[in-house]
Amino acid sequence: MQANFKRACEFIHQYYDESKQHESSQRIEGIKNEISTSGTYKLTVDELVYGCKLAWRNSNRCIGRLFWNSLKVKDKRELDSETEIFEAIKSHIKYAFNEGKIRSVISVFNHQDVKIYNQQLIRYAGYKLKDGSTKGDPEMLDFTKYCIDLGWEPSFGEFDVLPLVLQLKNKTPKVFEIPKEIIPEVNLEHPHFSWFKELQLKWYSVPIISNMILEIGGIQYQAAPFNGWYMSTEIASRNLADRFRYNKLPLIAEHLGLNTTKNRNLWKDHALLVLNEAVLYSFEEAGVQIVDHHSASEQFMKFVKLEQKSKREVTADWSWIVPPMSAAALEVFHHQWNNEVKSPNFFYRTPVWN
Amino acid sequence: MQANFKRACEFIHQYYDESKQHESSQRIEGIKNEISTSGTYKLTVDELVYGCKLAWRNSNRCIGRLFWNSLKVKDKRELDSETEIFEAIKSHIKYAFNEGKIRSVISVFNHQDVKIYNQQLIRYAGYKLKDGSTKGDPEMLDFTKYCIDLGWEPSFGEFDVLPLVLQLKNKTPKVFEIPKEIIPEVNLEHPHFSWFKELQLKWYSVPIISNMILEIGGIQYQAAPFNGWYMSTEIASRNLADRFRYNKLPLIAEHLGLNTTKNRNLWKDHALLVLNEAVLYSFEEAGVQIVDHHSASEQFMKFVKLEQKSKREVTADWSWIVPPMSAAALEVFHHQWNNEVKSPNFFYRTPVWN
Ligand code: HEM
Ligand code: HEM
Repeated sequence: MQANFKRACEFIHQYYDESKQHESSQRIEGIKNEISTSGTYKLTVDELVYGCKLAWRNSNRCIGRLFWNSLKVKDKRELDSETEIFEAIKSHIKYAFNEGKIRSVISVFNHQDVKIYNQQLIRYAGYKLKDGSTKGDPEMLDFTKYCIDLGWEPSFGEFDVLPLVLQLKNKTPKVFEIPKEIIPEVNLEHPHFSWFKELQLKWYSVPIISNMILEIGGIQYQAAPFNGWYMSTEIASRNLADRFRYNKLPLIAEHLGLNTTKNRNLWKDHALLVLNEAVLYSFEEAGVQIVDHHSASEQFMKFVKLEQKSKREVTADWSWIVPPMSAAALEVFHHQWNNEVKSPNFFYRTPVWN
Repeated sequence: MQANFKRACEFIHQYYDESKQHESSQRIEGIKNEISTSGTYKLTVDELVYGCKLAWRNSNRCIGRLFWNSLKVKDKRELDSETEIFEAIKSHIKYAFNEGKIRSVISVFNHQDVKIYNQQLIRYAGYKLKDGSTKGDPEMLDFTKYCIDLGWEPSFGEFDVLPLVLQLKNKTPKVFEIPKEIIPEVNLEHPHFSWFKELQLKWYSVPIISNMILEIGGIQYQAAPFNGWYMSTEIASRNLADRFRYNKLPLIAEHLGLNTTKNRNLWKDHALLVLNEAVLYSFEEAGVQIVDHHSASEQFMKFVKLEQKSKREVTADWSWIVPPMSAAALEVFHHQWNNEVKSPNFFYRTPVWN
């Protein structure tokens, strides 16, 4: 309780300070009383909104933080039924997608009663087939199995969108199918290689992280899904490329006529370049916002400058900020930052379904 | 003195331990006496050899450490004239180059009397021209100016090998021209693009670091130049590519017909790939050993496994170990290491000519 109050004070002071309001002492007194009677306290909507923005601004691993102040915050703390929450999540997805002009959004649910089991609101299933091979996204094997155990009907495809799994208080988790029409996906093609389309690769348009705990002023929000738009390397250099994910580099290299048994011909680098080109081109053609790693690096350096101007120290995790492609060609590669973790922030949660 | 002796003991114990010799107490007693009479002590040749190997094995930023035990150590501690030292350096270069089958070598000079001013034994000059532009390697601007002040004749080319600057005790530094014929260079061409050759790019074949202090058992060797062979990204993704180095990506992208005003077409990534291909191809054609970043990553992971087998913890600096190209496609990207600095090791020295 004491710790809670201390963090509450820190946050309230920062909020009043940065929003140029004076005299937070009355508010502090109110929180003190609230905590001593109920063990917790409620942020005002304005405080919640600013807290969410700060949590983003403090996300050391996020290269997209230039836009921290334009985050849209949906206060859904009052919802107390699975169907209402499911409706709010569908609204989030639609509002965030915004016909391709993606908006950065966070929806904050009741901090103790709601749990979302999914790692992202939209992700593809992964299956271990009878012959021992894997289909779909290997990272989702366990969660997919869990969904099937809960009664979800798998279709054993390469890109099956997983259902949403919600839990209210200690009730049994409920499974919801997200309607196809609100999940826009982008089919991948390449500006120069017509065979690329036939690989039938695709990806969903908005990454909405739903397994991190949002912490503001000592309160931990278990369910606070948030999204920005994609940086192209996330899809092209990781999700579709990693050997332990979709592992598509050998397939692409073969189509490029490259010998995949030799390291020295740089077939992986070549395939990565082509895959990254395809992702950027296809998202652009589909009218879905995405940022390339060069622009993202420039935007982050602009964020760093603005923060310095505001006399705030930027904290950052270099190994996450630097994109996993052509790293030294990006300005972020040539800088260093303090990786101290400030509050408010987002934290990992151990998978709830384990 | 006390500190010196403590570190000496630590090293001697490790040496006796790892080389499976027993009873180091007599040797320790000897060192104690030597330090108390002369303030320092002399490593035996065997100790020096092993100490150099350990310094390499402990180099947290080096991806090439699989081969630490095959380092060739040249004990040149007895040399006490500039000409002798210059001869030894020429021998080092020739022995290391070995007609392209490059050998990893270190030459250890008298630990207090000898200073080498160069950052690497072979590097290209950089000039600030009258019109404000830069020619050659911008990183070498200050040192080049220093050499000119010492009387070196510049030729204002893009790839002029700098002279060697040696200092004995507190005498004035001496300048030596390294004979052209012992510095094999590789002219760069590309397996598919005939225009590449006309860019007249080249690089020297062996990187011989000469500005780091070698520390073994508490003794700091000011002059101990060492070399391995190149990893291709060092030349292609950094030396020739960095904006503050040779900055050749725009030139290459133009020849590739790419629009260099847009980030989204990945012209830098494309130019980097072509430049890396050219470096690997040209070194191979010239018969000069070089390792690509994929093989280097595999070799490093093998080193990690062997060290674990020997019950030693690998220390490493992730941000230096992970090559600056296609990072996530390399296994090293997906690991983490402790970055504690062990002794023996190599340390930076502030430029002596400042
Ligand atoms: C606006 C566009 C955005 C872009 C381009 C962007 C980009 C990125 C990228 C590339 C990563 C690394 C992801 C990975 O390697 O797995 C990342 C991580 C992260 N971002 Fe952003 N981001 C954006 C918006 C947001 C928003 C709106 C929030 C929160 C309100 C946020 C919070 C985070 C957090 C907490 C992480 C670390 C995730 C983890 O540790 O797994 N980002 N971001
Ligand atoms: C045998 C082939 C070798 C390869 C392929 C190799 C590769 C590398 C690479 C790629 C780097 C990073 C360089 C940079 O980004 O500037 C590095 C750093 C380093 N290597 Fe190696 N290396 C080799 C041999 C050696 C040897 C023989 C030694 C010493 C005996 C050594 C000691 C070091 C040290 C001390 C660094 C850090 C340099 C610094 O901090 O600036 N390496 N190595």
